[in-house]
Amino acid sequence: MVDDKKDNPVQNVQPGPEPPEPRDAATSQQQSEGVVIEVDDVTWEKTVEKSDKSVAVMFYSPSCVFCHQMEPYFRNYALEYKEKVVFARLNIMTNLWTAERYGVRSTPTFKFFCAGKPVREMVGGVYPALLKKIVDEVLMYGNECARNSTSINYDITGYG
Amino acid sequence: MVDDKKDNPVQNVQPGPEPPEPRDAATSQQQSEGVVIEVDDVTWEKTVEKSDKSVAVMFYSPSCVFCHQMEPYFRNYALEYKEKVVFARLNIMTNLWTAERYGVRSTPTFKFFCAGKPVREMVGGVYPALLKKIVDEVLMYGNECARNSTSINYDITGYG
Repeated sequence: MVDDKKDNPVQNVQPGPEPPEPRDAATSQQQSEGVVIEVDDVTWEKTVEKSDKSVAVMFYSPSCVFCHQMEPYFRNYALEYKEKVVFARLNIMTNLWTAERYGVRSTPTFKFFCAGKPVREMVGGVYPALLKKIVDEVLMYGNECARNSTSINYDITGYG
Repeated sequence: MVDDKKDNPVQNVQPGPEPPEPRDAATSQQQSEGVVIEVDDVTWEKTVEKSDKSVAVMFYSPSCVFCHQMEPYFRNYALEYKEKVVFARLNIMTNLWTAERYGVRSTPTFKFFCAGKPVREMVGGVYPALLKKIVDEVLMYGNECARNSTSINYDITGYG
């Protein structure tokens, strides 16, 4: 917890092999402001679990440096896929219930949902191209994943 | 809950693009019997969270048809990667605590760990080649993932 400045999005940090030009990053940040939906414990069910489209969620915390590093890429992909995939983010500091329910142990955690089911996950600030690859794979195989698995009902067991 | 026979691994079900020959599958099942470690709520920490190697875990339930479909492939990969990756499986019916703690919502769920941290996930009975691809990616990028993320301490918050 070195960097705890909530209002310092560290936009100039450009990791990985595909750094966007600072100007483009700023522009796409503006454009994608309305594309990436901010979800919380209350709106989660409607936005993610009951969505008709596939959903990509970034679990972040304001103080997490790696989240700030990944955010411009996440926003770029949100713009690129806005017709096919809902992009959302959830602040785990104020919405721990959802983060814990989905087993999120570190930030950033990217989770991908199909038919309301989590089907893929990637953790950490890594090559942004991996993120895009997963989005493509979820669009290609995701619904099949969601069909070809058996849901666990924790209510019956008394867990969850 | 149609098929609840614990000792019937449905070896003849061969989904996806790379069906192994039945004979090979049977042989590799025998060979990999000792390679895929059966973990539970008690042995989880030592085997997965404190492992020196990367770990691939299959969360399954005995009655889940898609788990039986994926199992021969999981066992084959366990043999192929046995020097580099620990392969383990956990029966969610008898170890719900761990499954719930890691946000497992359906079976089969495949989770990949680096330095004790979950870094990738794939859910469902899909193309086995995807599983192999993720193992390769985790071996390539996994440690970076584990480094480039901020751990959440649920104990402090009173959750978990």
